[in-house]
Formats: sequence, structure tokens, C-alpha cells
Amino acid sequence: MTQLTPIAPERLDRLADVAVRVGLNLQPGQDLLLTAPAEALPFVRRIAAHAYRAGAGLVTPILSDAEIARARFRDAPDASFDKAPDWLYRGMAEAFSENTARMAIVGEDPMMLAGEDPEKVARANKATSLAYRPALEKIAGFDINWTLAAYPGAAWAARVFPDLPEVEAQARLAEAIFAASRLDGDDPVAAWSAHNADLRARTEWLNGKQFAALHFTGPGTDLTVGLADGHEWHGGASTAKNGVTCNPNIPTEEVFTTPHAQRVEGHVRATKPLSHQGTLIEEIAVRFEAGRIVEAHATKGETVLQKVLDSDEGARRLGEVALVPHSSPISQSGLLFYNTLFDENAACHIALGQCYSKCFRGGADLSPEQIAAQGGNSSIIHIDWMIGSAETDIDGIREDGSRVPVFRKGEWA
Amino acid sequence: MTQLTPIAPERLDRLADVAVRVGLNLQPGQDLLLTAPAEALPFVRRIAAHAYRAGAGLVTPILSDAEIARARFRDAPDASFDKAPDWLYRGMAEAFSENTARMAIVGEDPMMLAGEDPEKVARANKATSLAYRPALEKIAGFDINWTLAAYPGAAWAARVFPDLPEVEAQARLAEAIFAASRLDGDDPVAAWSAHNADLRARTEWLNGKQFAALHFTGPGTDLTVGLADGHEWHGGASTAKNGVTCNPNIPTEEVFTTPHAQRVEGHVRATKPLSHQGTLIEEIAVRFEAGRIVEAHATKGETVLQKVLDSDEGARRLGEVALVPHSSPISQSGLLFYNTLFDENAACHIALGQCYSKCFRGGADLSPEQIAAQGGNSSIIHIDWMIGSAETDIDGIREDGSRVPVFRKGEWA
Ligand SMILES: [Zn+2]
Ligand SMILES: [Zn+2]
Ligand SMILES: [Zn+2]
Ligand SMILES: [Zn+2]
Repeated sequence: MTQLTPIAPERLDRLADVAVRVGLNLQPGQDLLLTAPAEALPFVRRIAAHAYRAGAGLVTPILSDAEIARARFRDAPDASFDKAPDWLYRGMAEAFSENTARMAIVGEDPMMLAGEDPEKVARANKATSLAYRPALEKIAGFDINWTLAAYPGAAWAARVFPDLPEVEAQARLAEAIFAASRLDGDDPVAAWSAHNADLRARTEWLNGKQFAALHFTGPGTDLTVGLADGHEWHGGASTAKNGVTCNPNIPTEEVFTTPHAQRVEGHVRATKPLSHQGTLIEEIAVRFEAGRIVEAHATKGETVLQKVLDSDEGARRLGEVALVPHSSPISQSGLLFYNTLFDENAACHIALGQCYSKCFRGGADLSPEQIAAQGGNSSIIHIDWMIGSAETDIDGIREDGSRVPVFRKGEWA
Repeated sequence: MTQLTPIAPERLDRLADVAVRVGLNLQPGQDLLLTAPAEALPFVRRIAAHAYRAGAGLVTPILSDAEIARARFRDAPDASFDKAPDWLYRGMAEAFSENTARMAIVGEDPMMLAGEDPEKVARANKATSLAYRPALEKIAGFDINWTLAAYPGAAWAARVFPDLPEVEAQARLAEAIFAASRLDGDDPVAAWSAHNADLRARTEWLNGKQFAALHFTGPGTDLTVGLADGHEWHGGASTAKNGVTCNPNIPTEEVFTTPHAQRVEGHVRATKPLSHQGTLIEEIAVRFEAGRIVEAHATKGETVLQKVLDSDEGARRLGEVALVPHSSPISQSGLLFYNTLFDENAACHIALGQCYSKCFRGGADLSPEQIAAQGGNSSIIHIDWMIGSAETDIDGIREDGSRVPVFRKGEWA
């Protein structure tokens, strides 16, 4: 019997190599903490092998499982939904403090919890966010090199290609992931160097302009996003506080910076559905006043959205604004991935919640108080959602009110 | 296409139910920390479902993988082998402090690391033991309800049934596990109650005798094991310090107590090979003087054995002595499982290293200093190995030197 292998093993191995060398730039002797769906075990094994070859001290995988997550929603007592494994997340934060690198593999069903009680989903998400906060602070503060990469899980593939048989769907999703992760050429590491240089040219142009705000217009959108004082644009490779230059997302197409938490005005409509921790939120439309969301709707998943916005004070304010041209390879694939790692790299987006301190000039040396004073937002959440399309125009607004075209019809102007 | 299912799903579900209700006696609202090989995921899912139905607060599985463990030995730099994920084990100890119950699923290849450098294996084991110590203390001290249960992993099955095709080997191992775990009758929970009552009758008889020592004789063995002052025999169901009565091993056939760390004299030869953290140690033969192993040999795996004995001062002294008749169902299966959970329940055995504080009268209230003063051993290891056979005779020796037959020809006298 020949077993169908929907995911070419040598390509998976290559992605593991890129994730370790380009994504993490794992250093000799450095430990690695790896989270992944249990289904991604074949990928995790290849990552572990490449990590050890790169000189890893110790690779510790923490595997999760969608069916166990669903067993909880099906059978657990009500009090369960305000709990999270604090001891595990505290331990992760300790590991990061000891210079352990972090890789997260995404690949689970984006609608994993779509059939569950949205109140319970929201409570469980909040409990997790609170417990994870000490670890998230070290990731958001870029204390250590980290990266996200993707494995083409079967249930995820079925969402992206609902009309294909399972094996074919998984094969197609695998190819889409491999292409977006720039594995197709002879030398993926060189391809990533070139891509990082392109992104750097964009960030240098934007950093030279030092816009006070960006003005987004498009169908359903008229939004002015003030930028934080002393903000800095980043994209592609970036250097963590531990001195290691890594690519935090594989793939990545965005350049991004920190908005001013008090200076966002107007309304904006999402251009893609948002998959948030296993539920789908569709057609988000919100209105900002003085940086704060004062009105929010969604045609689907609105309960979860409202709970997200109530997570804490910072959940209604922006922590990131990111520019991605409509011609990005991921966008051109025409696929809706229902996964932020991909969909955020197919469109301009904004993120609710926590900002990245590296998106400030000299950010590594700024205290949380200084970051807040310059307009950096703080929250237990960081949720990206897509607002760009082929019809998006963006103007950069200077301190003196003059305007510079940044995007026209979804492309760099 | 019909898929061959080597492990009957409804029996696996029943074992999960017994592990949760009899093994752990999980309490409503109690969290559960579960370690298992990733291969056992179908079992872990059933355990999670039963745990939540029993009212679990949160079930947190930590899955391991043999291939990732081997990748380390194949590719990691030398310094890796003195490392362990301290942050994870510290977290586990914290979870136990917060009354989280503990289940461990065994099922990996007992010779997983047999092909690796024994020096590295020994170093890695020692690093793990040291890191795990805070958690082990809470298990050995019986702070919380815990249990071990087994999943018939494919590589393990191939070791037990080397001549059978993989699927058949796994099916046979599954049946052996299910039978030993007393799932075969109509009401496994009632069967466990009856079995626990039998074991209790044995421990009550032994506790009534209050022997000063046990004298083991058999081929290659003439060993006097002094018992700790104030020792108490245990077996089957037992009550943890958190007040929950659980069965720490599924299956279990043993009654056991704490030897006196300074009062073991003579020589003893193992009657079964010992699988220790992925390597096989065969034909162990040791000599004790004043409680301490002063000479040790093995025909295979002696390097690992010597490293184990050098783990710390307590590693050369006994922490447990256990009685199992040769007619025990596991022994009668005629199988060698290469797994302590099964093989220790097929023969009388002794354990190197840490003692169980519950094996003292009023042990829950004794300080570590008091336990040591009464002869309880302390170590970072606890390793059981089998010394009983159909030819084992055991006498109980009273304080006044008089003798009482306990075992004759491997059976209760
Ligand atoms: Zn982004
Ligand atoms: Zn983001
Ligand atoms: Zn034992
Ligand atoms: Zn033992």
C-alpha cells in the first residue's frame, strides 16, 4: 500500500530549516521553546533536528490539540472557563527571561471553537490572555528572538479549500504556505535576504518622512490613524534586545509601526473575516473617537468581538498599523486563509491592544511609562485585523498638515 | 477503505474512565496535569473527556516524542546533555502545590535511546532528575492524588512481541494492558474495589507483624533488607495528603514499604531486565554493606547503571521493597513488558533512591529529618528493579530474631 503524503517531506524539511535559520536565527547554545498543534508533529520533528544542528541547547515542544480543547467546551464545569494553566505560562516567561528563543507553529482549524458557546469562548480567551501576559510582555518587548511559522493542518486546509477532498486540500494549502514562505527558489535563505532588503527600503522611506498620521480611505472607511511620538517603522528582519536579528513572521510582507493610542479618529470596515482563537468574526465595522473604539459591530461573532473589546482599557485602542500592498504574493494567491499570519500579509491592517516597544526610536531603552507617554498602547491582547483592499488609498499627514500619497488603489504610491 | 484499528476504541475509553475515576479519583474543580507520549493522543483525548465529566477545572497535557528525543542525541552539541527544561518542571511543582492532580501515561519504546551514547544518556537523565526534583518531592511525599497508566505504543509493542506484525503486536499489547488493568469484567470499578480490599488484607497482616527485616533467598540472591523504624506497608488505594484516595498505579499488584537505608546486607541478582529511560540494563547483580551498594554489575547497560548509582549519595541505597506473588496476573501472562509499571507488578522488587514518606506511620506529619532518622532514604532517583521469581523465599525477621515465613517458592506462605 502506498500512503498518500499530502505534504512533501523535503519541502517541510526546508521550511523547518528556514524557520530555524531565518525565522529565529537560533544561536549556538540557545534553548528553544516551541508551541504547535500535535498534528504538526512531523514538522516539529524537523524543526527540532534543524535547531539541534544549529547548536540548540534544548528544544522543548509544547503540543496542543483541538479535540481536547473542544472536550473542555463540551464537558467541563462552568468554573473551568475562567481558568488557564498559569504555572505553564509563568514558566514560559521564565524561560524567555533566561534567553530561550520562541517559535510558535500555527495550523489548527481556524473555526475550531465556532460551534461553542461564545460567552465561554470569550471567558476562556480572557483567562488565557491574563495568564499569558508575563510571557507576552517579553515577546512584545522583543526581549528574545522569536518567530511564527505555519503547518498545513487538515482541518485548516478544509476551511481554505472547502470543495476539495481532504488530502488534496492539504496538499494545496501546503503549496500555498511553501510559496508564501519563499521556499520555491534554489536558495531560500538568499531569497529572504533580498526580501528583507526590500522591506528595509520601505521602512527607511517611511522613517525619513516621520508622518504625524496616516489617513485611510476606501469603501466603508475614513480613518485617521495618528502615529506615536518617536514611532519607528519596522518590517522583515529585526534585532531583538538579546542582540539576535530574526524574522518574527514566516511569511511576512508588512511594514508596521505604533499608532498613537489617543489619536485615532473616524470609522473603518474590515476587508477580511478575522479568525480569533477558534471563532470567526465577520465584517467588523468600528468607529474611533480620540483613539478609542466607541462603536463596534460585526455580522457574525459580534459577542466574541464585544468581549474582546472589554478585555481591558487598552483593548479598544490600537497597538499597530501595518502597510501591505494589494499585489503582495499572498494577496495575489487569491486565498482567504482565515489565519492572521497569512491574511495580515495580504492587506493593510491594524491591531487592537498591546504595541511593540521596538516600534519606537530607541525603544529598547524606554520604560513602559515613557512608551505610554509617547502614545504606545498597553493591553493583554494584540489582535490584527485587515482593513486594506484594492481600493485603499492612504495619505501620510505631516506635522504641518501637508499630505504625501503613500498608497493609491491598494499599491505603494 | 476500512482502517485497521489495533486498539479497540471502546476499551481505550473504558481505561480512560478507570484511570480518571479509580486511578486519580479526580475531584470536582481539581485541575489535571497529564504527561504522555504524543502517540498516545487518542487516549489522552478520552482521558480529557472523562476528566472534564468528572468536573475537572482544567486539563493540561504535556506531550513528548521519541523522535525529538533522539534528534537531540543525534544532533545536539555536547553541552545540551547537562540541560533540562527547569522552567517546565518548576511549573509542574507549582501546579502540584496548587492541588493539581497528576497523571502520567507510559507507552514509549523502552529501548528508545538504546543506540545512543550511554555517557550522554546518563548525563541527560541526571540533569532531568535534578530539574524534576521539586516536582518529584510532591509526588513522593504524596501531596496530591496521582496515577500512572499505560498506552500500547507501537514501538513498545514491537519490543514485547518482536515476532508479530506491528498492528497485531499493538493489538496484543493493548489486550495485555486492558486485562492487567482489570477492564475485562462488567464493572471495572467494582473489580478495583475488590482488588484493593485484597491488597489491604495483605498490608494489614504485614503491618501487624512489624518485622525488623525481610530475608530474601533465591538463585544468586541472599539479601537481608532491614525495614525502616515505624515503617508502614501500603498497596492499592491510598490517601494523599490532600485527602483524596487514589490508585497511584494502574495496574498494581504490589504491597510495599520503606527499607532502612543503613540496614541492607548481602547480594541480590535481578530476575528481569530493567528498562531505564530508554536503555536496557540486563542481569543486574549488586552487593550491599550497611545499606549501601558497594559492588554492582550488569551484563548490558552497566555504564548507565554505574552513572545511576553515582547520581547522589542516596542512589546506592534502597527507598522501597515490594512483594508481588509469582502468581500475579501480570506475571502469569508470561510477558516481559520492559516497562516498570508492568514488570514491577509481576515480581518482588526493590527500588534504589527516594523513599515514599507515606510508608511510615503518621508519615504525612513527619519532617524530612525525622524520616531520615527512622531510616528513610532520600535521592533524586527512584528506580524499581525486579528480584522475585518462582524460586524466591522470604522470611520476616522479628526484633527478637525469630522468623516467620512470608513467601515460599514465589507465593505468599
Ligand atoms: Zn502586523
Ligand atoms: Zn500584529
Ligand atoms: Zn514498587
Ligand atoms: Zn517504586
